[in-house]
Amino acid sequence: MGMSEITPFKLLMSREKALETIMEHIKPVETAELIPIERSVNRVLARDLVAAMDIPPFDRAAMDGYAVKAEDTYGASEFSPKTLKLVGVLRAGESTSREIKNGECIRIATGCPIPPGADAVVMAEFTEENGESVSIYKAVHPLENISLRGEDIKKGEVIIREGEILTPAKIGVFAALGIRKAPVYRKPRVAIIPTGVEVQDLGLKLSGGQVYDVNSYTLASLLLENGASVTRAPIIPDSYEALRAALYRYIDHDLIVFSGGSSVGERDMLADIIEEDGKLLFHGVQIKPGKPTLFGTVRGKPVLGMPGYPASCLSNAYVFLIPIIRKMARLPPKKPTTVKAKMAKRIVSASGREQFLTVRVVDGKAYPAFKKSGDITSLSKADGYVILPVNLDVIDEGEEVTVTLFE
Amino acid sequence: MGMSEITPFKLLMSREKALETIMEHIKPVETAELIPIERSVNRVLARDLVAAMDIPPFDRAAMDGYAVKAEDTYGASEFSPKTLKLVGVLRAGESTSREIKNGECIRIATGCPIPPGADAVVMAEFTEENGESVSIYKAVHPLENISLRGEDIKKGEVIIREGEILTPAKIGVFAALGIRKAPVYRKPRVAIIPTGVEVQDLGLKLSGGQVYDVNSYTLASLLLENGASVTRAPIIPDSYEALRAALYRYIDHDLIVFSGGSSVGERDMLADIIEEDGKLLFHGVQIKPGKPTLFGTVRGKPVLGMPGYPASCLSNAYVFLIPIIRKMARLPPKKPTTVKAKMAKRIVSASGREQFLTVRVVDGKAYPAFKKSGDITSLSKADGYVILPVNLDVIDEGEEVTVTLFE
Repeated sequence: MGMSEITPFKLLMSREKALETIMEHIKPVETAELIPIERSVNRVLARDLVAAMDIPPFDRAAMDGYAVKAEDTYGASEFSPKTLKLVGVLRAGESTSREIKNGECIRIATGCPIPPGADAVVMAEFTEENGESVSIYKAVHPLENISLRGEDIKKGEVIIREGEILTPAKIGVFAALGIRKAPVYRKPRVAIIPTGVEVQDLGLKLSGGQVYDVNSYTLASLLLENGASVTRAPIIPDSYEALRAALYRYIDHDLIVFSGGSSVGERDMLADIIEEDGKLLFHGVQIKPGKPTLFGTVRGKPVLGMPGYPASCLSNAYVFLIPIIRKMARLPPKKPTTVKAKMAKRIVSASGREQFLTVRVVDGKAYPAFKKSGDITSLSKADGYVILPVNLDVIDEGEEVTVTLFE
Repeated sequence: MGMSEITPFKLLMSREKALETIMEHIKPVETAELIPIERSVNRVLARDLVAAMDIPPFDRAAMDGYAVKAEDTYGASEFSPKTLKLVGVLRAGESTSREIKNGECIRIATGCPIPPGADAVVMAEFTEENGESVSIYKAVHPLENISLRGEDIKKGEVIIREGEILTPAKIGVFAALGIRKAPVYRKPRVAIIPTGVEVQDLGLKLSGGQVYDVNSYTLASLLLENGASVTRAPIIPDSYEALRAALYRYIDHDLIVFSGGSSVGERDMLADIIEEDGKLLFHGVQIKPGKPTLFGTVRGKPVLGMPGYPASCLSNAYVFLIPIIRKMARLPPKKPTTVKAKMAKRIVSASGREQFLTVRVVDGKAYPAFKKSGDITSLSKADGYVILPVNLDVIDEGEEVTVTLFE
């Protein structure tokens, strides 16, 4: 064995090219599911919502007052009221088939159907009721203070389109139409497969040389927040057989993510497994941290191999996994929130790779938070990151940088 | 009966004053619950996380290579390698108690515990292995390529503080420490009580004069998205007895919201019910839409009465309910996203109230979306809203406005 034992990365790519390559192979979810409308905020409507009824379902009073024939009020004023005969009362929820004739009115609550014969409502504040007669102090024109049937939503109208993201207001449209469940695209299903003989699941005791599984939890939480449904697979050893078996066991998912198992050395078997029955599209990305990342497709399913180191793995998830999931879920790309800050100390980087430098922002100054690729606190104590391009080796103290915040 | 039948609003307030009054009476949730870490993004940590172990738990190799005594490599270079005896191999997950003596090395995989006696790791790419000996082409200094025990997280260190919002990276800290559940403040519990004899629940048939319950669904969806847990109560009639019974039935919640039941006329009984055993803090807000809003406390619990009209109710929820819930959930205030646009047509408003004008933004132009207070499409077809101050009655066509987007 010698230096040649260390297998080089097979297809090293820039971040932009890697992301482009991935996105070309990501398809939005096609199947729909019905879910309760109040749980459907931020889900994507899977088919046009066509109104099956008019809203309002009937001509209704837009104000508390008196339903009248408008012509009976013409000329009415504060000093010269018209007097109408009160022939009925409609409280909230009530309706009547009693037709209003000239000279008559019916007291009506907001929302009640307009009685036959009436064509306007006089607001209560411009009236005075005296037993069986009502004085009208203000003229109304026909249709005044009436919401017409179908004025809000017309039967047959496409009121929300397929592909629209549901909001509380759009959920209100479903409710107004009496619909309890909305047809939305189902969430993309992601299998996360943590690998490594040294990796132990939480809650169990560590023995010599073991560490806890961090990646399947950080990835799961990030994915859940971005609209995925997640299967955390049991931890498997980095053996060819175990990796291969896990890949095919979870191949029914929309995306299979391995954490660990894509580094150089003894662990690049995943690249070979993908090539066996699928296509390896890149192996290695020119970013730091996060180089040992690979992507391919097997039986049409995208397979992502993430670095084993927690900070590298999660940092790469922000770069690659969020765009993947949002495209699958048909959500728009996430707009990153950025702030300007001045670098609190001089940074020298000679990695020859694009670098994600995690920083903590305090009083407009960016303090490097990055310690080592293996360190989870490089991220947990950071507010965001600064990207150092491949050809930039130095950022001077006090130099302005753009910090992309973790959210 | 006459004009005096229409009860005036008891305590009319400006929006700013109303919001301030509400917020003074809102207390953050105090009790905690344990939830699986992968479901804890955006939840608030309820007590300091103190590390119960060092991370890494042992000194470990930061690179694939050879564990050595650094002094044995001094002077090594590409042209003048040092030769060490290979006395062992540590693959991922393995560890050894074999002590390294001068002149010896052990092949070691990234992450493995450093064998006793070794104080540095030479990266594999600067070595050549030949059977039982290894040529070292580069000198290392003590601790080079070693991650020291506790370097990332020190046992006893407060690593995440009470009150911090959990992120995927912070969830990674829990995982690294082997902790499966995080203690977070429980979600504020909100009861939504829809009122109105004319209001019918979804899925049931409408009879004459009935409309579907929209508000409990729009409010529930908005609340769920902002960190609340929600109880949707059955629809109750606007009677004194029913309102009162419902209030006390749900008084164990952190917030009780009535929709409808706070307007003038036959429906301002809620104000009286609050005053019976609690305190009415305002009744009526100088905004349009959304005037018939009230707020008080009963037995220390905040009670909010929202307008019955769907668009007014939801528009008010953006103004009042989101700040309430986020304060209760200990989340920071939501930063609204705004865009500049030019008004597409002249707007005349003479309401004498601050006005929320919903708009649709197309190609930098803001088109009014508002139809009537009763219309749900005033909101569902809008991208956001423009606020017209109390004293502003006209916006000219082409005038620049700030649109706050619905999100």
